[in-house]
Amino acid sequence: MTEETPPALLDPARVPTRAGVLRAAAKVAAILPPTPLLPLDIDGQTIWCKAESLQPIGAFKIRGAWHRLTDLTPQQAAAGVVGVSSGNHAQGVAWAARRLGIAATIVMPNDAPQAKLAATRELGAEVVLYDRPGGEDRDAVARALIEGTGRTLVHAFGDPWVIEGQGSLAIEAAAQLQAATGAQFDTAIACCGGGGLSSGIALALPDARIFAVEPEGWDDVGRSLATGTIQRVESPPPTACDALQTPATYPINFAVLQARGVTATWVSEAEVRAAMRLAFARLHLVIEPGGAVALAAVMAGKVPVGPNTLVTLSGGNVDAALFAEVLSGTA
Amino acid sequence: MTEETPPALLDPARVPTRAGVLRAAAKVAAILPPTPLLPLDIDGQTIWCKAESLQPIGAFKIRGAWHRLTDLTPQQAAAGVVGVSSGNHAQGVAWAARRLGIAATIVMPNDAPQAKLAATRELGAEVVLYDRPGGEDRDAVARALIEGTGRTLVHAFGDPWVIEGQGSLAIEAAAQLQAATGAQFDTAIACCGGGGLSSGIALALPDARIFAVEPEGWDDVGRSLATGTIQRVESPPPTACDALQTPATYPINFAVLQARGVTATWVSEAEVRAAMRLAFARLHLVIEPGGAVALAAVMAGKVPVGPNTLVTLSGGNVDAALFAEVLSGTA
Repeated sequence: MTEETPPALLDPARVPTRAGVLRAAAKVAAILPPTPLLPLDIDGQTIWCKAESLQPIGAFKIRGAWHRLTDLTPQQAAAGVVGVSSGNHAQGVAWAARRLGIAATIVMPNDAPQAKLAATRELGAEVVLYDRPGGEDRDAVARALIEGTGRTLVHAFGDPWVIEGQGSLAIEAAAQLQAATGAQFDTAIACCGGGGLSSGIALALPDARIFAVEPEGWDDVGRSLATGTIQRVESPPPTACDALQTPATYPINFAVLQARGVTATWVSEAEVRAAMRLAFARLHLVIEPGGAVALAAVMAGKVPVGPNTLVTLSGGNVDAALFAEVLSGTA
Repeated sequence: MTEETPPALLDPARVPTRAGVLRAAAKVAAILPPTPLLPLDIDGQTIWCKAESLQPIGAFKIRGAWHRLTDLTPQQAAAGVVGVSSGNHAQGVAWAARRLGIAATIVMPNDAPQAKLAATRELGAEVVLYDRPGGEDRDAVARALIEGTGRTLVHAFGDPWVIEGQGSLAIEAAAQLQAATGAQFDTAIACCGGGGLSSGIALALPDARIFAVEPEGWDDVGRSLATGTIQRVESPPPTACDALQTPATYPINFAVLQARGVTATWVSEAEVRAAMRLAFARLHLVIEPGGAVALAAVMAGKVPVGPNTLVTLSGGNVDAALFAEVLSGTA
């Protein structure tokens, strides 16, 4: 593992690397116990589910936020950070900021789940709402908060540290699989919004096939990979997967996904709900819609399952009313 | 740790010991990864929740069953085992039996949750139903299945191996707390039906205060400890805590609970539901009613919380309809 000096913000020369993922994994392991890697039988084949819903903030986003904030210079830390997030990254940044004594402001959509808004505020962050249904540009809101303040933007997916931090999930899971069975992952299936987790896992597991799963109609990564250029979703349908409502991936993510030959697919809302019910019944886990898309793709046969397949259950922050509706089959 | 030769079934000289708990903990650690020990803030105090709902069978009962079945003689193993259980012990015995190639028959109540009946059968055990609402004696049903067959009874709580096996939960949790904070548990709060888990934890943590929590109206352990002799509940009310519907504890459990000065308390059905909702919202865990009583007692202020308190979240096997009702506040 090589030590790296954090370069300046938005330095185009700062690309995410596997060495960075390994460094992030070591930093995460020093502060957070591993989340369970749970075997699950699907039609006679065992898959390995990484229960990131059991992180202190209920999602894997704590990894990238921790890696980013611990690499700030003292001057950057003193000025504070600005995050942009539908909720899970918000909590990750807020958690890391509180732990490190850094001021955090988070730009969140006004239609984010109540549970995520409340949890972010409870962690001590200042929340600034933007009008997502009305089409307000969240990045512009963030820029206005940063301009002239010296604050550092901690982007939810298009940030090299964030990508490396999310990739630590796969390093941790690989060690768990090694300890349990002696095997290595040949396949990894990741929940995909902007592509932070997918690109991080793609860097972490250079020898595995990587699949990125998006919600139906929000398949910008899939269409970008198919066409070879970044595509933006236009007039996407409503989805329960609030964590994956990303209009377009960023070049930094796309470069990794494309270079690694990642395959993308999408799942329907009904397939997502079926996956949430299976995680409830068989794993006794509360998984939010956006955290269940990878499992949904396996159940629907939309991705191949190898002898040793990693499936991310990426978060569990779902409002009780929606979860009850899903269990009742009325959602 | 001393090695013990398993004595004959029902040998009154076979008492559960701390050495036996340590031996069980080593056997369990060799086959099952530790379940998470999750910190939870309750009114500004941190408690440590042991998420046994994440065991492969969704409950801690896998521990006692594994310890018992791995100590059978070859002759006993060849003859098979008979379990008596409302569901979680059933799955524990069935899981261990399948893994060891031992035939298992489980006597279960005809009003057990569908999820538990189905899961037990799926694990390859033969299920024999008895009429719990009608008051049929489950122990008599089990005796009839054993008589003249050479089969071994694996009792759900009144068995020395089972008690020691359940106690392994606290050995595992103590190692996790030590690794996380360097501290030792001063207080442990256990979900209590027949007292198998409570007595096992009482043996495992000789220096901690131990509390046993029962559902309202099913407080046979509490009344037994208060009067100094084993009391039986008469005409108990309905409860959602199917895992804790035990009419009376056994002398082998009572002896340990009494000797260790264990304190018992009870929680209402509404307090149980509030605990299930908190585990959902804050830990993203599916906890069944009987698995939430210890947390309910903490939330209701019915047990004292020390600087280092262990709280068992003992199982997660709950039907979807009931869980949805609890989340909706309609149950």
